[in-house]
Order: sequence, then C-alpha cells, then structure tokens
Amino acid sequence: MRVNRNYANLEDNYLFATVSSKVAEFKEANPNKKLIYMGIGDVTRPLCEEVINELKSAVSDMANPETFMGYGPYQGYDFLRKSVAKYYADHGANIDLDEIFISDGAKSDCGNILDIFGNDQKVLIPDPVYPVYLDTNVMAGNKIIFANANEENGFLPLPDRNVDVDIIYICSPNNPTGAVYNRKQLKDWVDYANEKDAIILFDSAYEAFIVDKDLPRSIFEIEGAKTCAIEICSLSKTAGFTGTRCGFTIVPKDLKRDGSSINDMWLRRQTTNFNGVSYIIQRGAAAVFTEKGSQQIRESLDYYGKNADAIGKAMNEMGIWYTGGKNSPYIWLKCPNNMDSWKFFELLLNDIQVVGTPGSGFGKNGEGFFRLTAFGNYEDTIEGMNRLKSIF
Amino acid sequence: MRVNRNYANLEDNYLFATVSSKVAEFKEANPNKKLIYMGIGDVTRPLCEEVINELKSAVSDMANPETFMGYGPYQGYDFLRKSVAKYYADHGANIDLDEIFISDGAKSDCGNILDIFGNDQKVLIPDPVYPVYLDTNVMAGNKIIFANANEENGFLPLPDRNVDVDIIYICSPNNPTGAVYNRKQLKDWVDYANEKDAIILFDSAYEAFIVDKDLPRSIFEIEGAKTCAIEICSLSKTAGFTGTRCGFTIVPKDLKRDGSSINDMWLRRQTTNFNGVSYIIQRGAAAVFTEKGSQQIRESLDYYGKNADAIGKAMNEMGIWYTGGKNSPYIWLKCPNNMDSWKFFELLLNDIQVVGTPGSGFGKNGEGFFRLTAFGNYEDTIEGMNRLKSIF
Repeated sequence: MRVNRNYANLEDNYLFATVSSKVAEFKEANPNKKLIYMGIGDVTRPLCEEVINELKSAVSDMANPETFMGYGPYQGYDFLRKSVAKYYADHGANIDLDEIFISDGAKSDCGNILDIFGNDQKVLIPDPVYPVYLDTNVMAGNKIIFANANEENGFLPLPDRNVDVDIIYICSPNNPTGAVYNRKQLKDWVDYANEKDAIILFDSAYEAFIVDKDLPRSIFEIEGAKTCAIEICSLSKTAGFTGTRCGFTIVPKDLKRDGSSINDMWLRRQTTNFNGVSYIIQRGAAAVFTEKGSQQIRESLDYYGKNADAIGKAMNEMGIWYTGGKNSPYIWLKCPNNMDSWKFFELLLNDIQVVGTPGSGFGKNGEGFFRLTAFGNYEDTIEGMNRLKSIF
Repeated sequence: MRVNRNYANLEDNYLFATVSSKVAEFKEANPNKKLIYMGIGDVTRPLCEEVINELKSAVSDMANPETFMGYGPYQGYDFLRKSVAKYYADHGANIDLDEIFISDGAKSDCGNILDIFGNDQKVLIPDPVYPVYLDTNVMAGNKIIFANANEENGFLPLPDRNVDVDIIYICSPNNPTGAVYNRKQLKDWVDYANEKDAIILFDSAYEAFIVDKDLPRSIFEIEGAKTCAIEICSLSKTAGFTGTRCGFTIVPKDLKRDGSSINDMWLRRQTTNFNGVSYIIQRGAAAVFTEKGSQQIRESLDYYGKNADAIGKAMNEMGIWYTGGKNSPYIWLKCPNNMDSWKFFELLLNDIQVVGTPGSGFGKNGEGFFRLTAFGNYEDTIEGMNRLKSIF
C-alpha cells in the first residue's frame, strides 16, 4: 500500500527543541544562575473560580444515573453555544447557534477544516507563521504561497490582487508577532477573499487580549465576512484552557463555495469524525462567559497585559523596534545592532540569562527578530527587562 | 475554489432519525403506553466512584498555580499511557509507551487515521457496518469493497485471498452484530494483511464485554499483528465515557508501509493536528485502570452483561437465530417469519412497544435482521423480553 507521500515534504522544525537543549546545556554549565523564561507560549495562571465550580458540579452530575450525561450533540451543548453566541453579540457580531461548533481547541479544527476542501488548493500563509498552518497544508498537498510580513508593513501584510488564492490564513492578534489588524485592513482582506472566491481561515485565539475598543476581535465584525470567512477561536489563552481543551469554530450559513454550503460540509465532517467535547469541559467553558466568570478571567488577562506593557515600555526606553505588546501577549522585537535571531538568543542566554524565542524559527521573515512572551510572572518579567536594559 | 467533491458521494443515513420519528409518532397517538427502549447504543450507568474522585482531584489541581496544568504531551500523559500499557500486558499484549496515543474517543481517530494514508486506497469494510467506517472512506475518496457478513458465516467474514486490499476494517466484538472473532480467525486476518501489505484498523471498543477467556480482546494478542495492525479503543463502553470522551490508539513501531514508519507518521499527524486530551479527563481515565476502578467498572459491565444474557436466553426460548448476546452488549437477531427489518420494527413498536434498530440500516446484509442492545435497565430488559415472548 501507499502512504500519504506529502508527509515526506514536511520539514522538521527544531525551534523549540533547540531552544530547550541550549538552555539545558547552559544550566548544566551554570547551575547557580537564575534563568528568566520569556519564551513560554503557555499560560501559567490557574483556571478561575467560576470555571472550577462548574467543572466540579459537572463531575458530580456524572456520578448519578439521574444526571449522568452520555453522548452529547456533535456540535456542542446548546448551553455553551448560546453563551458563545451572546459573547459574539456583545462585540457586535450576530452568529446563529447552528453556525457555532464547539471544539477541543483551535488546533484540531485548524487542521481538520482542510478535510472539506480536498487537496490542490492555493493557500496564502503569512511568513512568519504559526507552524501548524504550514504543516497541515503540506500534509494535504496544497500549494503554499507566502504573504510577506516584515518591518515595512508592520508585520501586517495586505492583499495583493495579482495573486489568486483559494484559502487565506489570518491570525490577529498575531502569533508570533503580536501585530493586530484594524477594521480597514481586515475589510480589505474580506473584500479580496470575496473577489477571489476564496475562504479566510481567521484564527482569533488571542482576541481576548485586545483592549483597544477600535480593534476588531472577530472577523464577523467586518461587513462581508459571512460570505468568505471561518473563524477558529479557543479558550486556551482567553481563560487558561491550554490543558483543559475547549474552543469553538464559527462557520456561517451564508458561506457557499463550489455550489456547496460550507456549514453543511463541516457539520457532516464533524458528525462523522468527532463525537463532541466532554460534557464536563463544556460546563467549565460555559462558566467563562458568565458575568462572574468574565470578570475573573479578565483578572488573569490584565495580569498578562501588565507584563506585556512592561516589556513594551522597556523596548521604548531602549529604542528597540517592536510589534505587539499591546492587545497581545507577544512582543516581537527587532534584534539590536542587526544581530541575527540565534546570535541574539545566545547573547541573552549567556550574558543575562533571559530565554526567548528566535524569530527565524517562524519563517524566513523572522530572521533578525525575536519573540518575548507575557505569560510569566510579573516580578520575573520586570527583572528580565532590567537585565536587558543593563546591556542595551 | 473547489471543495472536497467526495462529500457529494455520501449517502444520508436516516436510520436513527427515522426510528426517532416513528417512535415520536407512536407516542403521540398512544400517550399512555409504556415504551421499552432496546435500541440505545449509549451507556446509561454513571461513572464509577474512583473515576469521579480522580476527576474531582484533577479539577482541584487546575485551581492552584502550583498544580495547574497547561499544554500536555500530544500523545497523552505518561501516567495514563503506563496504565494502558499495563492493561494490555495483563491480557497478553506487550505495548510500548510510545505506541500508545491517548485520544478523545475512538471515533476521532477512526476517521483521522486516514489522513496518513492519503486517498485512492482499496478499503475492505464489512457489511453490515458501523457507518463511520464507510462515510470517512467515502469522504477520503477511497475505493470501498464490502466483506459480506451473513447468517452463513455467523456475521464473521474471513479473508478472500483473491481480493487485494490496502486497508481492512475489523470490529470485534462487532457493532452492530455482537459477533466476536476467535484467535484462529483473527490470525487468518493478520496473515492475510501481512501477505497483502495491507493495514488492519482494529476497532476494539467493545473488548471489555468479552468474558470468555479464550477470545482475544486485542489484535495484539495475535502473532504477526504488530507488522499489520492499528488498534483503536475507547473507554466509552468500557467505563461509561461516552459523554466524558477518552480513548486510545495503538500504532506499533514495527508497522512500516511504503518505506515509512506508520507510528512516526501518526505521531506527526497528531502533533500537528491535535493538542492532546484534557488533563482532567486523562486523570479520570487513569482511574479506570486502578485496582478499585477496574472492580467498579466491572459492576456496570456485569450489569449490562446480565441484560445481554437475558435477551440471549429469551431468543433461545423463542428459537430465534442470533449473534452476540455473550461477550457483547448487542444482540443481532434474525427477524422471525422472514419479516424484513422495518416490518419487524413496526410490529414490535405497535404491538408490544419495544423499540429496537432495523438491521437494514447498517448495510444490505442487515436486511431481515434486527439489533437489540443491553444498555437499558434490567427490569425493562426482562419486561421487553416477556413482551416479545408473548407474541413469538
């Protein structure tokens, strides 16, 4: 038998593995030096009280025959889908219940959505990029075109009408750059997608970090998006669900391509390949959207936001160019003195024991840039910035 | 843009929808008649105490920064994979930790595994069949060949060496027929797969219902399986996890095809398209395999087993031919008097208010057969059988 030969075209990404081994090596040679980790892409603060209470209550339901829950609806429970619909309505996007699909996180749907498109698609992917967009498309045998994100466009590329595409990936606020599209820019993408009969896969995993009221948190705040976009979101960063696993994908009923309803196709895909998210986890997820839950998750988001502010402020003081820092947990900085990404990494590790992520690991346009994250604790973040200021 | 046109080849399966609407119609016309539901494919008994305790403890972990869990290993936590390895070892199959992939249930992996094979495969699927095998392969554009299961072979078809195949689906104990392959029969399938350079996708979701010590619970109890088989299992029926969602897939490191390690490919697929199962759920799942947990789930399995015994005994008394009933929660019976499946369904609904599932809904070889399940409560099961005996 044959296997999927596209897998042979995957490139191994040793970014985080190399970071880890270099850090381990340094620690072995310097056991008494305190490292400050600013490369973490994972949350560190616990689930909020409301979520914990609902999780516990849902676990108790499973202990009694009267309240026990077996197979649930493939698309997710109405109680959670209603909460998600209200969340969208609160920031100006009207989404119907049967446009909402509860998932076990953005990553699964981000890859699985390609099933309904088949292969040989022309796919526009930003560079630098979250590696999952690239790898899932290599696996599917799609043709990849890169949209260059760079210092000139503030790491926010805009459409080039000379390029024909089928699928467009947009992540805003962006991972790894922290850059955020404004309404006008997103409208340009939406118009382009509609013109080209393409579909935008909009990754809004970091939307909850947006504090600027003028910036769109969902692509569905943009007119015309319902005929060209799918939005993939997650509670991972919004509510600390990286290890708890819950997200949601919005597929509008108005989205048709090639004579087919994309919503119908995704529903068919999910009913066939998926049996829904754990009842317990969905109950916890619903608590995120309650009044108390929203306030409690806001405390953690503000905590990370304060870290990001501190990093941005330090960059300003040092005169280092960067994107992100506001409306995002990521700070994407230009390495001082034209250093390349790995040289800057080594310098920070060896001289001041600050660990970040070399930008070149996210694509060729990442060379000469560096990612810091705001997911650590505040004291360490301040200490890290003081150490950085001591050398720049 | 184009979409995946294979979706247009999917046939709508209205089996359970038609059953539901006919039942609803009957209830409206006969509001005072008590229906006995023996069509349920879902568990009804609550999670066992050990699982509940571990779920609660894991939820508490998520409330404190010191014990909070973020992203976990893509393949699942070692604590759970070690439990699974020990479970296999206890019934004679030696599985390494990195051959075990924790999933959110058998259904996801059953569909997603096709990603690594690409399309245009020749796929052997039994008829009658769990519809997911069929639909996921139609979506992938594979060529489907049916293996006829029927009264003559006891609904346990054996390989036909004249047929060349790439992928072979085997479900034992079978859904919907309850039939179970013995060692000799499975060995024949394993030899055939190795001869044909094919891969067996072995669905062992019902293995925990096997009480006969001579019957294999895993394909990896069969010599030669590690070079030709993938096993997909679930805690859904084993431990009542249909709404809790956890399973596991075993991909041996010795399984190579087309110059590639299938284990490496599946690892790459999962690390790219999946972010692991919720820490909370994995903790609950691990409790299933503890000494106390095993004893507690055994109580529920025995409860369902007692129902199945009662149904089988009633069939024997009525002289009705059937498969399953022992080592399975399903009873697959030949409709008396050569009735077709839907006629028998109508008779049972209208005359004795017993609801089952017409066998024809599972494939053409299901015509004239009928599925009853043992997942109801004991009193109703006995009452259902008494009603059946009153007319046959």
